[in-house]
Amino acid sequence: MNNEQAVQARLRMEGLVARRVRGMRGSEIREAFKLTERPDLISLAGGFPDEAAFPLDEVVGLVERLISRNGGLIFQYGPTEGLSGLRSRVAQEMGRLGVAVRPEEVLLTSGSQQALDLIGRVFLDPGDVVLVESPGYVGGLSAFAAYEARLVGVELDREGLVPEDLEGKLRQLRREGARVKLLYTVPTYQNPTGTCLPSERRAALLDLAAEHGFLIVEDDPYREISFGAPPPLPLAAAGTGNVLYLGSFSKVFLPGLRVGWVAGPASLLAHLSLAKQPADLCSNMFGQWLVEAYLAEGLLAPRTAMLRREYRARRDALHQALQGEDLPAAWELPEGGFFLWVTLPEQGNARRLLATAREEGVAFVPGEAFCVGERGRRSLRLAYSQASPERLREAAARLGRAVRAHLAKEAGFGPASANSVGTPACPAGGAAVK
Amino acid sequence: MNNEQAVQARLRMEGLVARRVRGMRGSEIREAFKLTERPDLISLAGGFPDEAAFPLDEVVGLVERLISRNGGLIFQYGPTEGLSGLRSRVAQEMGRLGVAVRPEEVLLTSGSQQALDLIGRVFLDPGDVVLVESPGYVGGLSAFAAYEARLVGVELDREGLVPEDLEGKLRQLRREGARVKLLYTVPTYQNPTGTCLPSERRAALLDLAAEHGFLIVEDDPYREISFGAPPPLPLAAAGTGNVLYLGSFSKVFLPGLRVGWVAGPASLLAHLSLAKQPADLCSNMFGQWLVEAYLAEGLLAPRTAMLRREYRARRDALHQALQGEDLPAAWELPEGGFFLWVTLPEQGNARRLLATAREEGVAFVPGEAFCVGERGRRSLRLAYSQASPERLREAAARLGRAVRAHLAKEAGFGPASANSVGTPACPAGGAAVK
Repeated sequence: MNNEQAVQARLRMEGLVARRVRGMRGSEIREAFKLTERPDLISLAGGFPDEAAFPLDEVVGLVERLISRNGGLIFQYGPTEGLSGLRSRVAQEMGRLGVAVRPEEVLLTSGSQQALDLIGRVFLDPGDVVLVESPGYVGGLSAFAAYEARLVGVELDREGLVPEDLEGKLRQLRREGARVKLLYTVPTYQNPTGTCLPSERRAALLDLAAEHGFLIVEDDPYREISFGAPPPLPLAAAGTGNVLYLGSFSKVFLPGLRVGWVAGPASLLAHLSLAKQPADLCSNMFGQWLVEAYLAEGLLAPRTAMLRREYRARRDALHQALQGEDLPAAWELPEGGFFLWVTLPEQGNARRLLATAREEGVAFVPGEAFCVGERGRRSLRLAYSQASPERLREAAARLGRAVRAHLAKEAGFGPASANSVGTPACPAGGAAVK
Repeated sequence: MNNEQAVQARLRMEGLVARRVRGMRGSEIREAFKLTERPDLISLAGGFPDEAAFPLDEVVGLVERLISRNGGLIFQYGPTEGLSGLRSRVAQEMGRLGVAVRPEEVLLTSGSQQALDLIGRVFLDPGDVVLVESPGYVGGLSAFAAYEARLVGVELDREGLVPEDLEGKLRQLRREGARVKLLYTVPTYQNPTGTCLPSERRAALLDLAAEHGFLIVEDDPYREISFGAPPPLPLAAAGTGNVLYLGSFSKVFLPGLRVGWVAGPASLLAHLSLAKQPADLCSNMFGQWLVEAYLAEGLLAPRTAMLRREYRARRDALHQALQGEDLPAAWELPEGGFFLWVTLPEQGNARRLLATAREEGVAFVPGEAFCVGERGRRSLRLAYSQASPERLREAAARLGRAVRAHLAKEAGFGPASANSVGTPACPAGGAAVK
């Protein structure tokens, strides 16, 4: 076969793709991440934990003990639902959080992203409505969009998702005859805004879910990273049978192992587990063995205590350094999690600011990436999780120069120029952004 | 909320599941696996590598060196497409197999099962036709069935997939106006039959794919486990632009790490990569670092040489012991891979035999699990990969007793009784069977 024939064959193969992927496109954010690999650049873009704080010495010891106790079994295929010992320990941990689940009500997944994907697979027909926080976690939005769901954004204020806005949207959707299947929320130290939903709002969400008959997907990876009083109980703690709870060891242990879980009513878990079989047979078992041993040896609790102090120091460093820059920008101080959500004055445009910021040597994710529809233009997400306090102070100085230059430039352009930026991006194809 | 309300809520949530999963059901094989956990039972059911042969001492050294060279980075989030160093090494390995691919034409996946799932996601609309080997690998069948594809079985003989039968099916499908998207094949040491497709048949398949405009999914995990002359070149080696090649480190290194890959034309890989983002953000990175280091240190080649000798000895042990039983059953001697496909005389029924075999202390997978439609009733798959030669000889003795008892009983029942067994099972929900 000559080269031209091969090109023809490839074009022909292109024509075979399914409807669901034809609209998918790569995320500009993901492209931005590639640019942030410059060593001189300080990236506040990815919500990655700091790998310098990973407990590597402990890991080496754990691997040796696991091998001496279990031999090759820790590298063998395993059950689709995950290692039974770890399912039991996760159920125990959830009990500590106030959520009563049995081990068989826990499905271990390749990070909680896989749980999001499986939930989309099990519950979403094309056109079904998923209510999402706007701004909300882009990995959740893209997981549900991949199943051709209709994403309807619900507003947030400084206390998180606004129940009155949710209720209004639900009434409207009921009038339209829409099938509302899921509400996706990160209620505790939300990504990207850092907000924490108060107990009364949690109760209001549960009431609305019961009234309108949808399922709540509670994504809770930041719960342990709290800086003051402990957060309210999870929504799942109410035991109402209409919450799927997603947890993860990525923020408190090692993200590259990809160990997360979903817990919920056994009948729904059975569907997720069936859907997982053809998706991957089983997740990476070694990671599950390692997490199980880490929990069994009681190493997680002292680590999370250390992480709370460490991430609090980073939040404070970034917050204080930004305050020192005296910028015309607003943010709330988050009580936990990884993110500061900063909003510029009216003429600001975060995507254009990013270009200037990169020249100054700092990167972030523009707010539009997290939003459904025409929102988030003036906002930016700063992750303080990966850089040291010293680097965060330097990042704030660079960002300060970039914001001042940006606002001066935008004032020169006039407000109309904001329209030239193009459509906002809540990418259907999703983005490798935490 | 009281208990009855919670039950009501759960039932209501049950009503939310999507169309694609309503037909899914668990695999009886998977249930059978649970029973095989009896320590007195010798299981020839799962096509698992023997964990006693895993290179554990080497792994401990590799982990220590990886940590000292790269620090926490080996446990950090990574690119959706996989570790770039490993993508390069896989491209090199494929070059050694005669397949020219660039690193960016390799997508690393959570085992090749995830590659099968992503291929289904990218290419299959409900009702699209996937041509499959019947009997064929159940993980492939279930991955495509999960996207509501129509599976059309193609016959195999002792040399594997029969091109004439494929051609006949294609003509028929063309007359029906069916959309044939994929041909799924394990051409080399096939699962479950052990057959190896000769070069001329590989060429015939490529010709038919070009003529009818479908994509070939070449799943090739057993290539390195060859017992005599090397197998023919992969289908992908022809460079025709219409083959997606799936490889795996599960059979030659450590399955529990879940490191596989798909290689193919960059334009198709781009779709798969986009579809992978919302599915898992990134696969388990630690496993990829470990495999990369294993390859970099030149440890794979001596290991595969050892594995060839070891698995050949096991195949021989099982084959000779079964011959010694002098059963009215037929099988071909496979030239590689993990499986012996045994066919009973007309009155045999493998699913009923399994019940008798379990009482004797041996298990296998009945042939119907691998088949589309009413096939495989008389056949059984014996995996010789996990048990030692001694255990294989004992398994053959137990199986011999079970087969003799089974055939005596079936002769008593008369042939009509075979109808009472129910429909054959090619489970839509898939099975955690290798």
